[in-house]
Amino acid sequence: MSTLVEQLLDTEAHRSIFETAVRQNPLPVCAAFGSSDQPQPVRFSNTSQVLGTKDADGVRAQFPQTVAASGNVVLSSAGASTARVTGKRVAVLFSGGPAAGGHNVVCGLKRVLGAGNTLFGVKAGPKGLLKGSLFEITDANVDFILNTGGFDFLGSDRTKIKSAEQFAQVRETCIKHNLDAIVVVGGDDSNTNAAVLAESLFSGVKADGSGVQVIGVPKTIDGDLQIPGLLSISFGFDTATRIYSEMVGNILQDTSSSLKYWHFVKLMGRSASHVALEVALQTKPAIALISEEIASKQESLASIIDRVARVIVERSHKGMNYGVLLAPEGLIEFIPEMNAMIAELNDVLAHHAAEFAALADDAKADFVGSRLSADNAALLASLPHYIVNMLLAERDSHGNLQVSLIPTEQLLIDMAKKRVKELDPAVPFAAHNHFLGYEGRCGAPTLFDAAYTFNLGLTAGSLILDGRTGYMATITGLSNGGTPQAIPLAGLLNIERRHGKDEFVIEKALVKMDSPAMKFFASRRDEWAAGDLFASPGPRQFWGPTTHQLPISVALNSGADSLMFRIG
Amino acid sequence: MSTLVEQLLDTEAHRSIFETAVRQNPLPVCAAFGSSDQPQPVRFSNTSQVLGTKDADGVRAQFPQTVAASGNVVLSSAGASTARVTGKRVAVLFSGGPAAGGHNVVCGLKRVLGAGNTLFGVKAGPKGLLKGSLFEITDANVDFILNTGGFDFLGSDRTKIKSAEQFAQVRETCIKHNLDAIVVVGGDDSNTNAAVLAESLFSGVKADGSGVQVIGVPKTIDGDLQIPGLLSISFGFDTATRIYSEMVGNILQDTSSSLKYWHFVKLMGRSASHVALEVALQTKPAIALISEEIASKQESLASIIDRVARVIVERSHKGMNYGVLLAPEGLIEFIPEMNAMIAELNDVLAHHAAEFAALADDAKADFVGSRLSADNAALLASLPHYIVNMLLAERDSHGNLQVSLIPTEQLLIDMAKKRVKELDPAVPFAAHNHFLGYEGRCGAPTLFDAAYTFNLGLTAGSLILDGRTGYMATITGLSNGGTPQAIPLAGLLNIERRHGKDEFVIEKALVKMDSPAMKFFASRRDEWAAGDLFASPGPRQFWGPTTHQLPISVALNSGADSLMFRIG
Repeated sequence: MSTLVEQLLDTEAHRSIFETAVRQNPLPVCAAFGSSDQPQPVRFSNTSQVLGTKDADGVRAQFPQTVAASGNVVLSSAGASTARVTGKRVAVLFSGGPAAGGHNVVCGLKRVLGAGNTLFGVKAGPKGLLKGSLFEITDANVDFILNTGGFDFLGSDRTKIKSAEQFAQVRETCIKHNLDAIVVVGGDDSNTNAAVLAESLFSGVKADGSGVQVIGVPKTIDGDLQIPGLLSISFGFDTATRIYSEMVGNILQDTSSSLKYWHFVKLMGRSASHVALEVALQTKPAIALISEEIASKQESLASIIDRVARVIVERSHKGMNYGVLLAPEGLIEFIPEMNAMIAELNDVLAHHAAEFAALADDAKADFVGSRLSADNAALLASLPHYIVNMLLAERDSHGNLQVSLIPTEQLLIDMAKKRVKELDPAVPFAAHNHFLGYEGRCGAPTLFDAAYTFNLGLTAGSLILDGRTGYMATITGLSNGGTPQAIPLAGLLNIERRHGKDEFVIEKALVKMDSPAMKFFASRRDEWAAGDLFASPGPRQFWGPTTHQLPISVALNSGADSLMFRIG
Repeated sequence: MSTLVEQLLDTEAHRSIFETAVRQNPLPVCAAFGSSDQPQPVRFSNTSQVLGTKDADGVRAQFPQTVAASGNVVLSSAGASTARVTGKRVAVLFSGGPAAGGHNVVCGLKRVLGAGNTLFGVKAGPKGLLKGSLFEITDANVDFILNTGGFDFLGSDRTKIKSAEQFAQVRETCIKHNLDAIVVVGGDDSNTNAAVLAESLFSGVKADGSGVQVIGVPKTIDGDLQIPGLLSISFGFDTATRIYSEMVGNILQDTSSSLKYWHFVKLMGRSASHVALEVALQTKPAIALISEEIASKQESLASIIDRVARVIVERSHKGMNYGVLLAPEGLIEFIPEMNAMIAELNDVLAHHAAEFAALADDAKADFVGSRLSADNAALLASLPHYIVNMLLAERDSHGNLQVSLIPTEQLLIDMAKKRVKELDPAVPFAAHNHFLGYEGRCGAPTLFDAAYTFNLGLTAGSLILDGRTGYMATITGLSNGGTPQAIPLAGLLNIERRHGKDEFVIEKALVKMDSPAMKFFASRRDEWAAGDLFASPGPRQFWGPTTHQLPISVALNSGADSLMFRIG
């Protein structure tokens, strides 16, 4: 066998040249953890900051034990642990969609728990916790997953632990494996679940009456888990937006090379437009739509299309028959009139379900149109047939429209084409559409995400060794060395009435119109539309001079004085 | 204004942190050019290798001057130039789709021509040569474009210079700008055009009776411009496949993290499957379809679908309800029965044009089906309606089906879903589709493409200073230091009879079944289908330990003994 073939066989199963090299990349740790070679656990003490929402009283009633223990006070690291805690049995699980850096959370946990404690991995997410699918994580495991992307070491799923039966199953798993603590790596929903679990497992789980600690770790590529001053960003956002930004930068470079295409790019991110805003700040395209701005200005679909078409026409008049438009995945739901029309549509469909189902496909639009208010009927009639079909298609199990299936990028292309022709029939408009989503969730973590998550793991493990429960780990001061802190989860909860029951939710952080990132974007976008001022941020680098970047929106919103992060 | 805002404004217009840093990256040059700081032109001498196709006689008759001058003999560098040539006026243009590294060809040209000669850029491709849109390229220009992606410094288009009027326009441009040479950066068609131009401009262009030299540079991300022993790969292929490989690697990591989706990925590359093969070798997915293999085995669509569905079912039975399939863009045309059916379809549509046009949309499939042979009618009936609609849609200006618009990835998903259900109704199959194309053409060139193209520019410039015409620049021995060589373009030409006229073509290099790359892939793919042996090649790196990689298929096919390239 040739040397080359042997080398190639060696790259199978997560052993590409890159993966092998990046595993060796050292990670900085916050000064609080001591040396990066041998990070040590920290203990925590109360800060003066108390959290609480408008629903604090209702939350306290439902979370009496965790709120009494934490007082909803933010914790901060307070020097090295004095006692050497051993014998703890800790389980870690991934919940929801994957995000880059999850593996390093596990590595940080394992490192700080050390040989004296045991770390278990829960297979395939919360479902694995219910089933008791646990395995012990070894040092060799963490050496192999360090700095690699994805959640594939454990797997993930979206099971929400809600029913009494499910809580009983979790208890059973805790007892069976004699667990002392669970670490939940997830987004807003999963951290809400962690808060509920912390309360449910607070005491009386084990034979001696003691409980099981629960700690959350803030993950989501959408970037909508943010707490001013305490959580600048969830992990995975940086890697995802850098991956999308490279692709958008490449496409921008293609537009001004080929000189004949527009590209309309939809970006993942269910509700908030943080991803679209960050990618816009990185790449400076001709147009970027921000859902929250459209909602706050009560902008109509026709007005959005007109705005887009005018940029296309103006660029064409300057000889630029090309450009890039960015649109957030959740756009449709943020256009007030679309939202209103969909709501009325849902009512009509619910009230005439049998009649509607009996109709021939091509009679459905007319049937519905004649039953909508005049405005909504006109709006429906203005949409391309494939969007109408989607709007009339089957609802999900909650009776809701499946918005994520709507090809927003194609809708914008088709409507813009029509409007461009009205404004100036001589303007050529040829467009391609893209959806950037799954490509961004499992890439190798940027050095920012890699270091951030490793330190989040060290923090979560320290919280466990310090006997804490019901907190979310965080690192503050990301451009200033980094400080391990802990956010009391119950202090973040709001109460929403759903299906006649109180549900607890951590509110999603949307893009704020008065945030520095949004204001900077708004101050530059007209220039970006008028000329070719775009930049190619390039692929994320793991060695060399460009490795230590913060997301631009995070740097702006946290008042940093440079684009570089500094941990340690 | 804050420091940070100032920093952000500084990143506009191609000045991202990455772009600013990568411009400073030094590039190695072949030993023949001397030091990389001050590369010097080389002269060339004949090798013993003479090129020629089966049509050599016919080509000689049409290219009497260039063939007489070159004898179709391959040239190799033969030491530093002895004479210092000055006063040459050289124009460079990009032709066809962009590919990473084009800018570095310009940089290499400028560097080797030096201050004593003048380099002009032709704006917007061959069309700019017809119009005479030229501008002088400065040292500051090349400092700014060095190592950046895209063709945007000049722009590009797809104009083919064919008519007597067009040739006259080119002559006019040459005279007006007093040009001595033209460098055409392009693919197989553009290099054919370069051969024709070289003959047409061989002599009698300028007042003193002298001609204008024409040199080609081999570009195309498709990788189908290859000449065994002389041209391992066209430039841009490495960057594009590395970009696609990162995305596919990320998606693979996502499949085994989320544990519930298949992803069917269509990869750019009009005819040949080199891109799909390279991405498969980089990432080791469950399934990769290679068009050339399907054609050579005369595989039917039903058989392909059955093969795919069996992998899906077998993986599911092992608990893996996920995976990745790669399909080349040109797949449909390589399935023999599809090709035959489309040919008969074209006949039917041509013979019944008026009747067909008068039909209602939903009557068209039946009308056509009843006029096809039984086999072709059955095949048509087996396809999803959106594919049938596409097959019955308007032809392009040559009467051909617009194959690139066919959503092959969705066709494969829908047909596989049906077949999976037949094989085992209990197997879940949820799939997403992707098309990776434009994202890969204009990324920053890998260090391989950056160094390769810079040296191709040095070679093209040296050929001009050495008085040569009708050659394509190449660098051989890419894992062995690199040697500047020149391929006589007329020696590559075949004659095809089209529309009653002889047309010259450089044959596209397809994937060969007996090539080392294909054989290695075939030897491993069953293992890749049976388990999760995938690798994430990661984003291309410009600093650090993983920068010097060759495309795997190029390393295998050229008999290299490692995956590393070595120039200089």
